[in-house]
Amino acid sequence: MSMMPSTTGTSHLRPRQRQSGFTISTTTGLCKQPPTSLFLWTLLLHCLRNLLCIYFPFLATSLVEVLCLLVFFGRLVHFAQVTPRSVFWKDTKNICIMISILVTLIDLIVYGALRISAIRGIRWSRPLRPIFLINFAESRQIRRAFRSIRNTLPEITYVFLLFMFSVLMFSLMALKLFGDRNLKTVEGSPYFTNYLEIVFNMYVLVTTANSPDVMMPAYDFSWWYCLFFIVYVIINTYIFMSVFLAVVYNNYRKHLKNEIRKLAYMKRRKMIEAFNLLKVKEGAEFVVKEDQWKHLVKLVAPDISTSHRELLLRISDEEQKGCVDKKSFVRLADLLNIQVITIKLHSHPLDIWFPHVYNSTPSLCIRSMVRHKGFVWMYDVIILINAVFIALDEKNPYISYAEWVFLCLYIVEILLKLYTYEPRNFFARNQFWNWFDTSIIIAALIATVLNTALRSVTIYNSQQVLDIVFILRVLRLIRIIDSIQRFRVIMNTLINIMPTMLTFGGLVLVVYYIFSIVGMEIFQGKVKFFAGNTTTPHALYCGNPALKDSTFARAKYCKNNFNNIASSFIVLMELTVVNQWHVIASGFALVTHQAAKLYFITFHIVIVIMIIK
Amino acid sequence: MSMMPSTTGTSHLRPRQRQSGFTISTTTGLCKQPPTSLFLWTLLLHCLRNLLCIYFPFLATSLVEVLCLLVFFGRLVHFAQVTPRSVFWKDTKNICIMISILVTLIDLIVYGALRISAIRGIRWSRPLRPIFLINFAESRQIRRAFRSIRNTLPEITYVFLLFMFSVLMFSLMALKLFGDRNLKTVEGSPYFTNYLEIVFNMYVLVTTANSPDVMMPAYDFSWWYCLFFIVYVIINTYIFMSVFLAVVYNNYRKHLKNEIRKLAYMKRRKMIEAFNLLKVKEGAEFVVKEDQWKHLVKLVAPDISTSHRELLLRISDEEQKGCVDKKSFVRLADLLNIQVITIKLHSHPLDIWFPHVYNSTPSLCIRSMVRHKGFVWMYDVIILINAVFIALDEKNPYISYAEWVFLCLYIVEILLKLYTYEPRNFFARNQFWNWFDTSIIIAALIATVLNTALRSVTIYNSQQVLDIVFILRVLRLIRIIDSIQRFRVIMNTLINIMPTMLTFGGLVLVVYYIFSIVGMEIFQGKVKFFAGNTTTPHALYCGNPALKDSTFARAKYCKNNFNNIASSFIVLMELTVVNQWHVIASGFALVTHQAAKLYFITFHIVIVIMIIK
Repeated sequence: MSMMPSTTGTSHLRPRQRQSGFTISTTTGLCKQPPTSLFLWTLLLHCLRNLLCIYFPFLATSLVEVLCLLVFFGRLVHFAQVTPRSVFWKDTKNICIMISILVTLIDLIVYGALRISAIRGIRWSRPLRPIFLINFAESRQIRRAFRSIRNTLPEITYVFLLFMFSVLMFSLMALKLFGDRNLKTVEGSPYFTNYLEIVFNMYVLVTTANSPDVMMPAYDFSWWYCLFFIVYVIINTYIFMSVFLAVVYNNYRKHLKNEIRKLAYMKRRKMIEAFNLLKVKEGAEFVVKEDQWKHLVKLVAPDISTSHRELLLRISDEEQKGCVDKKSFVRLADLLNIQVITIKLHSHPLDIWFPHVYNSTPSLCIRSMVRHKGFVWMYDVIILINAVFIALDEKNPYISYAEWVFLCLYIVEILLKLYTYEPRNFFARNQFWNWFDTSIIIAALIATVLNTALRSVTIYNSQQVLDIVFILRVLRLIRIIDSIQRFRVIMNTLINIMPTMLTFGGLVLVVYYIFSIVGMEIFQGKVKFFAGNTTTPHALYCGNPALKDSTFARAKYCKNNFNNIASSFIVLMELTVVNQWHVIASGFALVTHQAAKLYFITFHIVIVIMIIK
Repeated sequence: MSMMPSTTGTSHLRPRQRQSGFTISTTTGLCKQPPTSLFLWTLLLHCLRNLLCIYFPFLATSLVEVLCLLVFFGRLVHFAQVTPRSVFWKDTKNICIMISILVTLIDLIVYGALRISAIRGIRWSRPLRPIFLINFAESRQIRRAFRSIRNTLPEITYVFLLFMFSVLMFSLMALKLFGDRNLKTVEGSPYFTNYLEIVFNMYVLVTTANSPDVMMPAYDFSWWYCLFFIVYVIINTYIFMSVFLAVVYNNYRKHLKNEIRKLAYMKRRKMIEAFNLLKVKEGAEFVVKEDQWKHLVKLVAPDISTSHRELLLRISDEEQKGCVDKKSFVRLADLLNIQVITIKLHSHPLDIWFPHVYNSTPSLCIRSMVRHKGFVWMYDVIILINAVFIALDEKNPYISYAEWVFLCLYIVEILLKLYTYEPRNFFARNQFWNWFDTSIIIAALIATVLNTALRSVTIYNSQQVLDIVFILRVLRLIRIIDSIQRFRVIMNTLINIMPTMLTFGGLVLVVYYIFSIVGMEIFQGKVKFFAGNTTTPHALYCGNPALKDSTFARAKYCKNNFNNIASSFIVLMELTVVNQWHVIASGFALVTHQAAKLYFITFHIVIVIMIIK
């Protein structure tokens, strides 16, 4: 019985995130929300610690780090006390955390010792930090995603090897075909003469990032050579990608099925255990008494209302015998997962306070007007006109006055709606659009007032506030989506897939964190950005002579560097989008060593595998 | 027991090509191979006709065209005679063909009349030509794919509208945020000042083709603006793409299910109709007599052997009553779809001709050596050494001698295998790898001999022959895949998905054809390519002053033009790969009009929809 609360704790009130108000999740574990907030919070802490590393002396940051380690260790000790010894030592994640704590401590001590003797060491344990995040019970979703990737790896590896073999083969062919032709690339460097460089170029071609450029010299030389590249792209980009997808999909389905089966089996076993603890013999069969059952439900799900509990009882005890049999009892976990939406019919506060005024003819007239379809259409037209006004030039005073008019119109709309509909229903948790509208309008109101106030005081516009005003103004236009039925359906689908997206986002953040730490160790300070108005000649090649005349410097990519964690994240984001990644990779290879390209290739492979998932 | 013969018939020597020896296709129509050869043949004819258009006088090409139309008309008339009138006039494809023939004729006459009065008209009916290909009974697969795309269109349209709305909104925001900042792009042109240009840039960003470049000026200006682009990419590229996929997938599944159900129903109905025509009353139930049944099978499937037919009869007439009942009769269509592989155990011809020599001790020794695993391994090692030799410099005479040694070794291998295994089994239809090996080796032998002969006669190497020799040499290395079990499985998967790929390829070719015809009408001759050694200043801007200083000319894309159908196909291929498509689009917009970008955007949308399928 002790394990039960964890199975049943998932029912909660927010029906916003689900498709119909009534979702029966048969797979409890899978539907649990990831506590992303905690995850993000821990990540932020890590980032903070990292930033501290840059700006504060070593002692302070290591103190923070030791404190964090102590917290993690404390959690582990607490966890060890509440779980049986055999279970605790069998769980890989506990061992993982222990090893990580140990390794981090050793690293810290070694680094400190080196520092005292004035040698700059590398804090090589930093990429291990996400282990702490992943291995605590809260980030179950991310752990599951990692596990599923690990399960797919062996099969993917073979496809990947075959793929690499094909790339190497084609590169060899390219070397033979184009190596002796004395062709030049657009930049004037020799074309396809070094085997390793060809392999890199061909790998980049698979990602399509250098697509027509790598082909042009050969194509210019002879018509037929483009066939070589076309065949290459078809085989290595399209066909291999579909094989990859097929392998991953098959594997994923297989493992998911197993996992769901295991979960369902475990749930059933635990429920039967619980039943055996509570059962009483009544007549020929064992049952659980009604008050026992009620007490249990109250303990397990303290949030649900009495009426909800009564409803569940009515379902579990169909014949109203005052007890629940085994079959119905086992179903309890699923029953608790069913979302029950209780609609409370409030009457409007104005109806209670001033019934005569609220129900008078003009008031009724206004209310029916607001409920009319034409009201929505009128505001759609207003939004469209607003869109045109936004696109027009801001400096015209009439247009900035019009802005006030629009703002007033929107506020009037919200007030009218609040007058017509009951405020508590209007701002119910699942009324996403109402919340969205109101917050946008209020924010726009505040920002516009602030902007005007600032302008009248300091004559200049505050650029930040103005930016916010612009963004809010455009965001208001999104409301038009809500009035078209089809669009609303799509938007709801979008909102529904958000949890999955967030899990994926968490996974991506972990990978980004690891790679940015490694990237910062390797590339920090090698590429510098100079603001637009400097006159230093260094600015032309990002402060590093090795970048002179490189494509990297010519495309003005100096700000894409690994000098701090934010920049690193942005560079990794650009690498994820794939386009021009070879330019960035070549740039960093120039300032360090050609082997640095391996870092970028590894990142690309990891990200592609994750996106395919 | 009756199913046994068919199960045992499948065990054969090389189980390599199928996962299990036994494929039962329940969906007759879906699994039928598309007669791609005919399709390609017709397409080639069209291309030929097009090429004729360029090089030959108008009269000759129109004569060919009229002849083709007559052939199509003749087919239609023949078709009308063999099908009932009501069915014929209800079939959309017949009406389609009739209208197309009519339209093409009118176009031809108008064009001819205009030509006589010396006005250059446009042959606007040419993009209609693929209709002829699609609408004949042979290209059923492609027609089905088109239909499934048409079915998905309505739902996609709404997602697409929402997507366009989002792009427009973000563009508006970008205009407001960056328009007044006086920022410059890398090329020095103003950044984000014209709304339509912003929309184009933002659309290109969705395809990730201008990924970090479009962001850099804003990012250089302020750190925070990159968030705008990151949010944009996440929403419009990743999230919308997954919604698109979800919609298409759901829709596809629904329609496929319907189609399969309809097909199965139709098949059943037709079989019952056939049964009712042939049935004879025997005892309490209606049956089909054995000889009637055999006659029918012989008519329906004249290719299958007598033993195969007997096998089918044994299955259909389980109790050997000399007649087939209704249930078994209806199953006939499915039975005929089962692949039965008959294995003939030949003995080796040498065993028949010289039994004493072939079975002598040295001969047996050789045969067991060839069958040994070590033999395969030895050749794998030889292939690896060969790979190293290929990568080495060709000019060293020792290496070119080594080439002969390798060639001899491969020929010896094939001869040894032919000596050991029975030649007819060795070259059986499903022995893909043996065919592949042998043809590569023989082609390499011929090409190498030819190359040597040419060199000794003309002193120079013939570049074409040498290229072929190089390619064949590298292709030989593929054999190593065959000896690793895991790779072989993946390769077989690849070979299995080929038919689907071919259907898709046919679809792509049809779209390419339409777009290349339209592209040639619009852009023909606007961009010219000058070979590398010309000294004309025109070569710098592809013969069109409008391209001066454009990215298009700077990247040397002059050969990417629509001057003939082959070039057009290559350009469209590059557009399909997506990268740098905005450079090509902008280039062609410069030489014509900004509206030309619509052509490229349309192509991109069409291709994306098709690839998603």
